[in-house]
Amino acid sequence: MSDKRIVSGMRPTGKLHLGHFHGVLANWRELQEAYECFFFAADWHSLTTEYDNTAAIRQNTREMVLDWLAFGVDPAKSTVFLQSHVPQHAELNLILSMITPVSWLERNPTYKEMQENLATKDLSTFGFLGYPVLMASDIIVYKAAKVPVGHDQLPHLEITREIARRFNYLYREVFPEPAALLTETPKVLGLDGRKMSKSYGNAIYLSESADETRKKVMTMVTDTQRVRRSDPGEPDRCVAFSLNRLYIPNEKKAEIYEGCRSAAIGCVECKKLQAEYLVETLAPFRARREELTVHPSLVDDIIEAGSARASAVAAETMAEVRDAIQL
Amino acid sequence: MSDKRIVSGMRPTGKLHLGHFHGVLANWRELQEAYECFFFAADWHSLTTEYDNTAAIRQNTREMVLDWLAFGVDPAKSTVFLQSHVPQHAELNLILSMITPVSWLERNPTYKEMQENLATKDLSTFGFLGYPVLMASDIIVYKAAKVPVGHDQLPHLEITREIARRFNYLYREVFPEPAALLTETPKVLGLDGRKMSKSYGNAIYLSESADETRKKVMTMVTDTQRVRRSDPGEPDRCVAFSLNRLYIPNEKKAEIYEGCRSAAIGCVECKKLQAEYLVETLAPFRARREELTVHPSLVDDIIEAGSARASAVAAETMAEVRDAIQL
Ligand code: SF4
Ligand code: SF4
Repeated sequence: MSDKRIVSGMRPTGKLHLGHFHGVLANWRELQEAYECFFFAADWHSLTTEYDNTAAIRQNTREMVLDWLAFGVDPAKSTVFLQSHVPQHAELNLILSMITPVSWLERNPTYKEMQENLATKDLSTFGFLGYPVLMASDIIVYKAAKVPVGHDQLPHLEITREIARRFNYLYREVFPEPAALLTETPKVLGLDGRKMSKSYGNAIYLSESADETRKKVMTMVTDTQRVRRSDPGEPDRCVAFSLNRLYIPNEKKAEIYEGCRSAAIGCVECKKLQAEYLVETLAPFRARREELTVHPSLVDDIIEAGSARASAVAAETMAEVRDAIQL
Repeated sequence: MSDKRIVSGMRPTGKLHLGHFHGVLANWRELQEAYECFFFAADWHSLTTEYDNTAAIRQNTREMVLDWLAFGVDPAKSTVFLQSHVPQHAELNLILSMITPVSWLERNPTYKEMQENLATKDLSTFGFLGYPVLMASDIIVYKAAKVPVGHDQLPHLEITREIARRFNYLYREVFPEPAALLTETPKVLGLDGRKMSKSYGNAIYLSESADETRKKVMTMVTDTQRVRRSDPGEPDRCVAFSLNRLYIPNEKKAEIYEGCRSAAIGCVECKKLQAEYLVETLAPFRARREELTVHPSLVDDIIEAGSARASAVAAETMAEVRDAIQL
């Protein structure tokens, strides 16, 4: 066990957007300075819900990892890998399945919930029921000390901890119980004022061009109570400002507050200004993304090297596991 | 796919007895002359019921494989391997779990039955529920054309076939549906007249000495209606004869029929004679077992070489699987 080891994964849903930039990626950028981080693309997890629609997984994985690397994850500091390239996750998953009561999985709060939310899809598969076991494997195969989670994911981490405890009790102390590293993620609003999400079609993508971003910002909802140009507005009711305030220097923010409330500036002009700060903030990351795409094999090489490194660590754990079970 | 490929596994329950010799091993000896056989020790399957009692699995595996090799399985003809040394089984198990409805597993006839039979043990684990998925993986990862099964195992093989079909339907034709190679196994009686079984304590083990075997035969039940030495007996009602007739040459069998029915021979004398034919039949196999144990690493070496060979075949299949799913 390393006290400083962290594991975190993301399902490959494709290109990431600003919500990810401020949520997961901002967090990962910080964590990698203080911890030994294992960041993985959870492509096997995608199969729990996308087993009948797998055509995009590979490309989505590539795009997502490209975003990770361009927007701050440093493969020299962190181990970036692909879940399905580390077969030890599957091996530990099989072994942990033998000691995990079905009742622990059935009482998993998101199990019924997701089945209901995705009612058009048949999610009554064995793998869907068992995804907390796979998640436990993903984490403890690295003997992670901590796992960054939001409040909503605490029940899953609790199952991981229970499974680790049960293994230690049945065989011998192999796994530390990973602790929650509670992470507050800012709610990033999309173009229409709802939470930014790929499925809402309201997202600004990290990989899009400056011009696409500018155009999208111009379509953003502003203070709906400001009907005419001459009406004073309120930036705190403005969706565009809510998003872009993250990129605007404080003194400029004060100017916007004043200009909006006094109707000195119009929304078109204001959003143009806001868009420039956003574009400027993203520019160096996007330039890095461009660089990375110049060498098409680079991302694959990084994934391969990371997967080999992860696999070496996981193989050590699995040797201990086999020894503890006496297989 | 090879039209000639067969996969068959056995849970490592320890030293084998005459029931195995006439059942599984006699069958395997024949099959390996006509097919490309993959015979494996199913140590992961042992965990479905023995997860809380694993201390004996490793030794049981060694003893069992030693019996295989001594009693007719030829590693030059067949691939002899250990399930847990071929991680591709676990990887395919994970993938197949994603496409297998829980309902297929719950309706598995032996699921409820075994839970009831082993009611003292908590078998409500995720892995126990999923053992037909692991079994399917064991078989189709080699693209087996046929699987030797008894009538009672047909429902399991049917789940394997259903899972293979579902994979082929969802992705593309990767797996042949393995056909049943229905196998009649003779019912071998134990010392007390019940079916020979380790759990009844009525077994004659392949690995025991000639003297132990002789002693055991002398304790066998004979024709219970032959009370006195002078009473005529009936070999067809005699448990000892029922077992030993398998080893006695036909002309000697005729002598015993006559001698027993005319009370010309007594049971003690008769069983001594019977035991000699049994001991003689087993002698060359037992000698081979002795030879094998002289080199303690030999069995391990055979298992390692076989597992490497199996793994190479399974890796080819898994490359196709990943490609079909587009992972
Ligand atoms: S002026 Fe700017 S801050 Fe005010 S409502 Fe318009 S876009 Fe929003
Ligand atoms: S004489 Fe032989 S065959 Fe007849 S009952 Fe005795 S042991 Fe059995």
